[in-house]
Amino acid sequence: MTEAERLARAALGRITEPGDESVGLLLERHGPVEALARLLDGPSGEGRRARARGTDARADLDHAAALGARLVCPGEEEWPTQLDDLGPARPIGLWVRGTASLRLLALRSVAMVGARACTDYGVRVAAELSAELADSAWTVASGGAYGIDAAAHRGALAATGITVGILACGVDQIYPRGHSALLGRIAEQGLLVSELPLGAHPTKPRFLQRNRLIAALTRGTVVVEAARRSGALSTARRARELNRIVMGVPGPVCSELSVGVHALIRDGGSLVTDAAEVVELVGGIGTDLAPDRRGPLLPRDALVGEALQVVEALPAGAPGAPVERLVRSTGLRPDTVLQRLYELGALGLVVRRGARWCLARPL
Amino acid sequence: MTEAERLARAALGRITEPGDESVGLLLERHGPVEALARLLDGPSGEGRRARARGTDARADLDHAAALGARLVCPGEEEWPTQLDDLGPARPIGLWVRGTASLRLLALRSVAMVGARACTDYGVRVAAELSAELADSAWTVASGGAYGIDAAAHRGALAATGITVGILACGVDQIYPRGHSALLGRIAEQGLLVSELPLGAHPTKPRFLQRNRLIAALTRGTVVVEAARRSGALSTARRARELNRIVMGVPGPVCSELSVGVHALIRDGGSLVTDAAEVVELVGGIGTDLAPDRRGPLLPRDALVGEALQVVEALPAGAPGAPVERLVRSTGLRPDTVLQRLYELGALGLVVRRGARWCLARPL
Repeated sequence: MTEAERLARAALGRITEPGDESVGLLLERHGPVEALARLLDGPSGEGRRARARGTDARADLDHAAALGARLVCPGEEEWPTQLDDLGPARPIGLWVRGTASLRLLALRSVAMVGARACTDYGVRVAAELSAELADSAWTVASGGAYGIDAAAHRGALAATGITVGILACGVDQIYPRGHSALLGRIAEQGLLVSELPLGAHPTKPRFLQRNRLIAALTRGTVVVEAARRSGALSTARRARELNRIVMGVPGPVCSELSVGVHALIRDGGSLVTDAAEVVELVGGIGTDLAPDRRGPLLPRDALVGEALQVVEALPAGAPGAPVERLVRSTGLRPDTVLQRLYELGALGLVVRRGARWCLARPL
Repeated sequence: MTEAERLARAALGRITEPGDESVGLLLERHGPVEALARLLDGPSGEGRRARARGTDARADLDHAAALGARLVCPGEEEWPTQLDDLGPARPIGLWVRGTASLRLLALRSVAMVGARACTDYGVRVAAELSAELADSAWTVASGGAYGIDAAAHRGALAATGITVGILACGVDQIYPRGHSALLGRIAEQGLLVSELPLGAHPTKPRFLQRNRLIAALTRGTVVVEAARRSGALSTARRARELNRIVMGVPGPVCSELSVGVHALIRDGGSLVTDAAEVVELVGGIGTDLAPDRRGPLLPRDALVGEALQVVEALPAGAPGAPVERLVRSTGLRPDTVLQRLYELGALGLVVRRGARWCLARPL
């Protein structure tokens, strides 16, 4: 990836909308620099040029860096290759805010989505399920919205877990307004992710394209509460199209907010009632089904930097250590230690058991 | 069926326990008279003779007749032939209390079972579901117990429907004690059914054998609330073994009383949330799935007696008539009219639409 290509991808994000297959095909054929030139000079070039006016890809990248964000592009080390399942509708690039590796977190991630106007039951179930998933070192992804999304993010954060907020606006935007503190906390402890450039506002089509991104990035989607025509069901539909696992948490049959979830289950989605059932479905064969996990995906001596520091701070014995002890012995920030632990967990090198972390048993 | 055979079956019920395959095999090979003689004279004859002492099959049949009950035996017109799926564990005979035809009601019946110590949610859901099924002229069968069973029976009765109580004791017994009024009402408006002779008390094995009878008699079993090891799940398991439809009504995942139902659905049972979904599953192809029902199973001119009176009292037009109008024009008792309507419904000759009954459209 040359600097010119990275700048071209940033610029393409300014003049296109997420999920545009015609742009994706052009990119496949010509690469980002040439695709950008063709789009600006082509038959619809006038509108594109108007959108490009006043934008500056270099300034975007600098502004992002100042915010603790970066542009992750296809082909780069941090790119989550499962997004390639989207074909030409694959994102041009992803703006990622936070210091963990998106690719590694996404390896062991599950989406949890549901109604904005949910019930107390939905909030409780989403928060508990998300906390339980975090206790097993699974990353919970959601859309940052009110209701179930917020409960899912909060449940993971409360269990000292990692959560990813996938947004329909720029990662510098506070949307919805009331989630200023929540989004800030996600950016520190986990990641905020978006296809849209900084400053971009959400629109109806952007929400739908964002839903495809939630579905594609994760290994499965859990719907907690959804009325008959809920947007959460569009995420589940996308997940099914992408051969991801589709799950639903049932509720009282008299609740309008469980109607959509029950329809989803009747239509072939899996009924789940706790994190163990979710993990059994999304965990790879041998990883989470078996009583003993498989060995690590990566040899330990390939580790460098903070990840190596964290692994070396872990005691050899079975009881493992809580995050605070690793913070003391490495001198790293708590969020950093946690992010490295989740990445190491995705690589099969460490295992979370509630509040404690252990070295995975070698194969 | 000779009188001697009927008396022998009644006597066999006194000296055996329900579901005994060895007795069934003897019956298949030798017929009831010879099977009875062999059991009384065989190696275990002493115990059998002790149980037979003081019993009198003729007196049992007379006593039953005085109560409005009768013994229905395999091969007789009222025998529900689907019970033959039980093979040698098929009942020797069924004591039936009430005036409707067990065979016809069972043709269009669904079992609804669940926890005794259920929640308000379970009671409400069972009663509503049962009432909706009655509104579509489906007979609801259950076990007469406290909790979900009672709610299922009451829902059907409240919707002027027919319900069948399948008991683990004699049809003259009041068990549980608190259900005196309910069981009486079921005997009047629907049927009480048992394999056990008059005077017999329930035991643990009899409950389990009764569950097999509930499963075998109906086209499918709906479980409304069930803890992890509920007896209702044994009925569902029997239903599955017999290739009947197994259904579960979901509930809050935090409710211990929905754990068993959710496990049932995860294990392949169908999630159902209302009567239309139940009927779609248990209704024969073309009967309940299609917007227009299929034509009757029986030509109308084969009808005699009360059934003919009821059919002739029905107006030709689409709006049909409520039960009260048919009571006035036939001079029959309301319960009798209702029973004939349910039987005619099972034969495809009439259709229930809520409170009104119509002639089915001819094929």
